[in-house]
Amino acid sequence: MVTTLHDTAVRGFASDNYSGIHPEVLAAIAAANDGHQIAYGEDAYTTRLQEVFAAHLGEGVEAFPVFNGTGANVVGLQSMLPRWGAVIAASTAHINVDEGGAPERVAGIKLLTVPTDDGKLTPDLIDREAWGWGDEHRAQPLVVSITQSTELGTLYSVDEIRTIADHAHRLGMRLHMDGARISNAAAALGVPLRAFTRDAGVDVMSFGGTKNGAMLGEAVVVLDAEASAGLTFLRKLDMQLSSKMRFVSAQLIALLEGDLWMRNAAHSNAMAQRLRAGVEAGIADGSITGVAFTQPTQANGVFATLPDGVADRLRESFRFYDWDASKNEVRWMCSFDTTEQDVDDFIAAISRET
Amino acid sequence: MVTTLHDTAVRGFASDNYSGIHPEVLAAIAAANDGHQIAYGEDAYTTRLQEVFAAHLGEGVEAFPVFNGTGANVVGLQSMLPRWGAVIAASTAHINVDEGGAPERVAGIKLLTVPTDDGKLTPDLIDREAWGWGDEHRAQPLVVSITQSTELGTLYSVDEIRTIADHAHRLGMRLHMDGARISNAAAALGVPLRAFTRDAGVDVMSFGGTKNGAMLGEAVVVLDAEASAGLTFLRKLDMQLSSKMRFVSAQLIALLEGDLWMRNAAHSNAMAQRLRAGVEAGIADGSITGVAFTQPTQANGVFATLPDGVADRLRESFRFYDWDASKNEVRWMCSFDTTEQDVDDFIAAISRET
Amino acid sequence: MVTTLHDTAVRGFASDNYSGIHPEVLAAIAAANDGHQIAYGEDAYTTRLQEVFAAHLGEGVEAFPVFNGTGANVVGLQSMLPRWGAVIAASTAHINVDEGGAPERVAGIKLLTVPTDDGKLTPDLIDREAWGWGDEHRAQPLVVSITQSTELGTLYSVDEIRTIADHAHRLGMRLHMDGARISNAAAALGVPLRAFTRDAGVDVMSFGGTKNGAMLGEAVVVLDAEASAGLTFLRKLDMQLSSKMRFVSAQLIALLEGDLWMRNAAHSNAMAQRLRAGVEAGIADGSITGVAFTQPTQANGVFATLPDGVADRLRESFRFYDWDASKNEVRWMCSFDTTEQDVDDFIAAISRET
Amino acid sequence: MVTTLHDTAVRGFASDNYSGIHPEVLAAIAAANDGHQIAYGEDAYTTRLQEVFAAHLGEGVEAFPVFNGTGANVVGLQSMLPRWGAVIAASTAHINVDEGGAPERVAGIKLLTVPTDDGKLTPDLIDREAWGWGDEHRAQPLVVSITQSTELGTLYSVDEIRTIADHAHRLGMRLHMDGARISNAAAALGVPLRAFTRDAGVDVMSFGGTKNGAMLGEAVVVLDAEASAGLTFLRKLDMQLSSKMRFVSAQLIALLEGDLWMRNAAHSNAMAQRLRAGVEAGIADGSITGVAFTQPTQANGVFATLPDGVADRLRESFRFYDWDASKNEVRWMCSFDTTEQDVDDFIAAISRET
Repeated sequence: MVTTLHDTAVRGFASDNYSGIHPEVLAAIAAANDGHQIAYGEDAYTTRLQEVFAAHLGEGVEAFPVFNGTGANVVGLQSMLPRWGAVIAASTAHINVDEGGAPERVAGIKLLTVPTDDGKLTPDLIDREAWGWGDEHRAQPLVVSITQSTELGTLYSVDEIRTIADHAHRLGMRLHMDGARISNAAAALGVPLRAFTRDAGVDVMSFGGTKNGAMLGEAVVVLDAEASAGLTFLRKLDMQLSSKMRFVSAQLIALLEGDLWMRNAAHSNAMAQRLRAGVEAGIADGSITGVAFTQPTQANGVFATLPDGVADRLRESFRFYDWDASKNEVRWMCSFDTTEQDVDDFIAAISRET
Repeated sequence: MVTTLHDTAVRGFASDNYSGIHPEVLAAIAAANDGHQIAYGEDAYTTRLQEVFAAHLGEGVEAFPVFNGTGANVVGLQSMLPRWGAVIAASTAHINVDEGGAPERVAGIKLLTVPTDDGKLTPDLIDREAWGWGDEHRAQPLVVSITQSTELGTLYSVDEIRTIADHAHRLGMRLHMDGARISNAAAALGVPLRAFTRDAGVDVMSFGGTKNGAMLGEAVVVLDAEASAGLTFLRKLDMQLSSKMRFVSAQLIALLEGDLWMRNAAHSNAMAQRLRAGVEAGIADGSITGVAFTQPTQANGVFATLPDGVADRLRESFRFYDWDASKNEVRWMCSFDTTEQDVDDFIAAISRET
Repeated sequence: MVTTLHDTAVRGFASDNYSGIHPEVLAAIAAANDGHQIAYGEDAYTTRLQEVFAAHLGEGVEAFPVFNGTGANVVGLQSMLPRWGAVIAASTAHINVDEGGAPERVAGIKLLTVPTDDGKLTPDLIDREAWGWGDEHRAQPLVVSITQSTELGTLYSVDEIRTIADHAHRLGMRLHMDGARISNAAAALGVPLRAFTRDAGVDVMSFGGTKNGAMLGEAVVVLDAEASAGLTFLRKLDMQLSSKMRFVSAQLIALLEGDLWMRNAAHSNAMAQRLRAGVEAGIADGSITGVAFTQPTQANGVFATLPDGVADRLRESFRFYDWDASKNEVRWMCSFDTTEQDVDDFIAAISRET
Repeated sequence: MVTTLHDTAVRGFASDNYSGIHPEVLAAIAAANDGHQIAYGEDAYTTRLQEVFAAHLGEGVEAFPVFNGTGANVVGLQSMLPRWGAVIAASTAHINVDEGGAPERVAGIKLLTVPTDDGKLTPDLIDREAWGWGDEHRAQPLVVSITQSTELGTLYSVDEIRTIADHAHRLGMRLHMDGARISNAAAALGVPLRAFTRDAGVDVMSFGGTKNGAMLGEAVVVLDAEASAGLTFLRKLDMQLSSKMRFVSAQLIALLEGDLWMRNAAHSNAMAQRLRAGVEAGIADGSITGVAFTQPTQANGVFATLPDGVADRLRESFRFYDWDASKNEVRWMCSFDTTEQDVDDFIAAISRET
C-alpha cells in the first residue's frame, strides 16, 4: 500500500491547485469504479455529465471532458478557428503567459494581446486588435477570449460580458471564456452559471474542475454549436482524450450535480475576503504596515505589494508566489480547503513581519 | 453524492481500458490526498516515483508523468528528435493508426512505416526505411519505435530488442519503446523490467499505467539522458503537464513500488492464455468450429477469425472489437479484473455460437 | 555584370529541374518588368493568368501562383482539409518521399500511403486506407492525391482518373492532383488539359511550371471552389506568397498562353521515347546488354536497371540519379532542352559501357 | 510571346516591392541560364554566392538562398530555437504583424512583443520580456529579433546593435536581424555590411534582395555557426528550397558582387530624403500645410500625417498606403527606380492638395 508521504496538515496560499481532492469528488471516483465501461467517452458518466451541464446551461450544450486547463483552452479555441485565425486576449491571459506557447505550437493560433490594468478586456481594448479582416498578411482576429474570474482575481460583470459578446459578434468574431476559475466567478456574481456564460453570449468555454476540488478534469463546453467544429477529432489529436473518461466525468458530476462546485468556490472566495479584510483591518489599526492591494479581491485571489524582504520571511511558513517581483507584488490564492484558521494565522504572520 | 450509474458486474473483452481502477491504486490516490503539495511535479509523490523507477531501472533514469499514452509517446518521441526527424515504426503501431495523427500534427513528426506480419520490427524491416541521412528531401530517420507488447498481442524477446537497439544505434538512430502494455510484456517475459528496456538498449520509453489498473497515468521514462532534450518544456507545451501531479505519481507508485504492476499484468496475461487454451480445447474436441487464431497469444490479447455472424451474436453478451472486419478477425483483450468465470462463460458462448 | 559561371553546353539526364529557363519564359519576365505593379497578386499579369487558365479549364477556376512544387502541394492540400484530415497517396508520391516531411510538419497533414507497382493508385488501392470516417482515433481520409505524370514516369489515362475521382467522391473524399509534370501528361495523353483534370473530376491541382521551362513558378489551381477554403490566407502563412508576383505569373502565362507548355513537354517526352527506343534497339541488336526497363516510358522519365558498375561509369559523362541503388535501378529524365544529339550520345555511351 | 500588360511608366510610393527587377539583376538571370546545373543549391552560382557573402562578412559565414522575406525570417529563427523557444521583438516587427502568423503556425514560435515608439528595441525594452528561463510554463525567450532598417523607416546605429547583442548574449539569448531592407541600412549608416551585423554581434540575419531590385530572393545568413542548426533541413521542410537555385543566387550575386546593392539602396534612401526635404520646404514656405512627420527619415520610407481627405486625393495619382488610418498616418516608400521627377511631382501634388 502507498504510504502518505506528505504532511496533510500543511496548507498555504500558493495556488488553488496545491490543494487536493474534495472528499465528495474522491467518493465519486470510487462510485464510478468497478465493472467495465466503454472507453473514450461512451460511458454512463460522460452521458450523465451532459444532462448535468444541460441542467445548468440549457439544452443544446455539449461538454467534452479533457485533462487540464491548457488542453481545454487550446482544444476549444482550435475548434473555433480556421488555420488562419487569431485570438484577441488580455496580455495577462493564461493562454498567453502560462501555457508554454501551447496555443501557438500545438494549435497554430496567433494571439493578439492587449495590455490591461485589471486583466479585463473591453470593447475599446478589443478594438486595438480587431481589424484587418480579409488581409492575408494579418492573422485574422476571429475569436475574443476572456478569463472569468481573471488571472488577477477580478471579475467581469454579466453586463460587461454581454457587451463584449455583442461587440465581438457584431464584428463577426466569437467569444471564448477561459473558465479555469469559473465557479469562483459564479459564486462571486451570485447568478446562475448560465447568466454570465450562455445567456451573456459566450460561445465556447473551458469549465474548470481542478482548481475547485477535482483531482483533475476540465471540460470544453460548446454553448453555441455553430461556433465550434470537429471537437471530438481535435480533442483526440491534441492528446486530451481520456480512455477511462468515466473518472473525469464523475468528478465533474460530483461538482456540478449538487452544489459542491458552489460550496467550494464560495468558500475559497470567502477565505480571500477574510484575508483581505484582516489585512485591511491591520492596516487600519497600524498592526500591518507597508502592505497595499493592487487589485480588487473579487474571487479567490488577493494581490498585494509588500515591503522589501517580507515575502521571503512569510514564505518560511506559508507558500505563495511572487506576481511581479520587480514591484514586490505577490499573489495569495485561497482554496476550497483553506480554513479560517489558515487565514487568521497568515494575517498574524503578516502583522508580525511588517 | 454521486450515484453509481453502471452495472459493476458487467465485464467484457473489448479493451484493457474498459476496466476501472485497481483498489490499491484508488487507495494510493486517497493516501496522497489532503494538505497542500506543490503543483506541476515538485511534490513528494513525484519525487518518490523517481526512486521507484530507479529501483527497477537503475540510477540515472528520469520519469515524467503524463496523462495518457498518446501524450507519453508524442512527448517522448519529440524529445528525441530535431524538427526534421522521422520515426521508423511498424505500420500497425499505435502512433500510426490510433492517435488521430497526433505525432504529425502536434509534434511535426514524420512516421516511416513498415508492414509487418506480427507487429514486430526487425533490422531488415527497419532497413527498408533507414536510409537517406543528410538528404534534406527526406525526413531524417533518427528514431526507431517499437511497441512492447505489440498491438497484436505479440512480444519482442530480450534478444530481439537488443538486436534492434544495436542496429539502430549503429546507424545513428535511437530506440523508443511504446510501453502502453509494458507490464504485460514483463510478466510474459519473466525478466526484470530493466532487462528488456534499459539493459537491452532502449533509450526512451512510455510506461503505461492506465491499461494495467490505474485510473489514468503514464510516464515518459528517459533511460539514456543523452537521447532526450527539453522534456519538461515539451510536456508542458504538449499539454501533458498535470497540476495536481501527486495523484498521477501516486498511482504509478502504487503499481510499481510493490508487485501490483506484475500481479495485474500476470493475471490479465493468464486470462488470455486461459481463453486461448479453452478455445483451442473446444476446437480440438469439436465443440468449437470455424475459429482460428491469427497471432500467438503472448500477452493479454487474443486475435482470432470467426465464422460469419458469430462476432455479432457473441457481442450480444460480451463486448469486443473487430480487428479486421474484412477477414472476420476479432480482438479479445483481458484485463486485470477479468475473472476465470468471465473467461469460461465466454468460451461457453463461443462454443454455443459456433 | 554577373559572369556566366558554368558550361552552358553541358546537359545530362539527372532531372528536368537541372535545365534552365526557356528563352520565351525569360522574355516574359523581361516584358513584365519596369514600372510599378501592385505586390502580392493584384498585378496585371496575375489577373491575366486567370484568363489563361480559364481558357484551358473553363470559367470558375482560380489559380494561385506559388514558388515551388512542395508549396503548391502543401497549400493546395491544406486548403482541402480540416485539421483532422488525412490524404491517401501512393507511397512513392513526392509528398511522401521528397518533401522533407513538409505536409506533416507545416500543414499537420497525415499521409495514408499505399504501395503501388507503378506509382498509380486505383480504387482498390485507395480502399486499403479509405475507412474509419467518424472514428476520432483515425486521421480522417478526406482527400486522395494522385500524381500526373507519376514519379515513376507513368501516366493515368483519362478513364483511370475519372474512375478514381468518382470513387473518391462517392466516399466523400476530394481528389487532388500533383501536377509537377502535368504538361508532360497532357502531351502524352494528347487531350486538352481540361479533359484529364477538371472534366475528369479533379478538384484541386498543382500546376507545375518549373520542370517545364520556367525559372520558378507553380500554381495551385482550384477546379471546384467547393473543395477548397482559405487559399489566400494559407498561401501567405505557408510562406508561398510572392511579393513581385507579376514575374511568377508572367512565366506561367508564357507557358500557357500559347503552346509553349505543350512544345516543351512534347519535346521532353519525345526525347525520353528516343532514349528508350535507342536502348531497346541496342538490346535487340546485342550492342547493349544487361539493361532492362522497370517502368513503361509514358512521359519524360526512363527507369532502367543496369549491370553492376555501369551507372557510375556513365556518370563520368552524363549526370543522372540512382532510383533504387539496391537493384541497380536508375532514372533518366529528359528536359525541354535535351537535344537529339544528347540522347544519341548517351545511347552510344550506354552501348560502350555495357 | 508575352505582351507587356502594364504601363511601365507608372510608379508610386506604395512599397519597394511594387518596383520590378533592376536591369543588371535581370542580366544576371540570363547569364546563369542555359545548360544544366545541379538543382537545390549545388550549382556554380550558389557556390559563388558564398564567396560574395564572405567578401562582405568574412570567412565562416554561410548563406542559404530562399524565396521571400517571410521564409528567410521563419527559417532563420527556427534554426536558432528549440521547440520551446520564443523570440522577443518589437510589436511592429514584420514577423509579428505582416506574416499571417507564419512564425507561430509554420515554426511553432512564440513571439514576445514589446511596444516601441520607433520600431526599435533597447535593452530596457527587451528586459520586459527577457525573464522566466527554466520555467516550463513560459515560452523560453532565446532570441531577440531586430529589423534593420525598421518597419518605421528608422535605423539602429552600430552602437545600438552592439549594445543589444551584448545584452542578449549576456542573458544567453541570440540576436537575429530581419534585413529585408538591410541594404538601405548599410547605405544610410555608411559603414560596411559587416560593421553593423557580424561585427556588432548579430548571429543570424535575413538578407533581403527583393525590395532592392531583385525579382525575388533573400538569404538566411548564418554569421555565427553556433547559433543555428539544421538550416538545410529546415529550408526544405519550410518549403523555401528552390530547385533552380542558380537563378536566386545569381540575383543576389548581381546585387552584392559589385556595388549594385549599395547604388540601389543609396538611391532609394536619397529619394526618401528628397521627398522629406521637399515637403519640409513646402511646410516652411507655407505651400504645404497640415502635414507632419511621425518618424525620422533614416532609410527609404517616409511616415507622415495628412489632413483629412488628402491621402485619398493624392492616391488618385500616386499609390501609397495608410499606416495608421485612425491617425491619418501614411507611409511613402521609395524604391531603386523612383526618379527625382517622381518625387518632385509628388511633392507638387502634396502642395496642391494641402
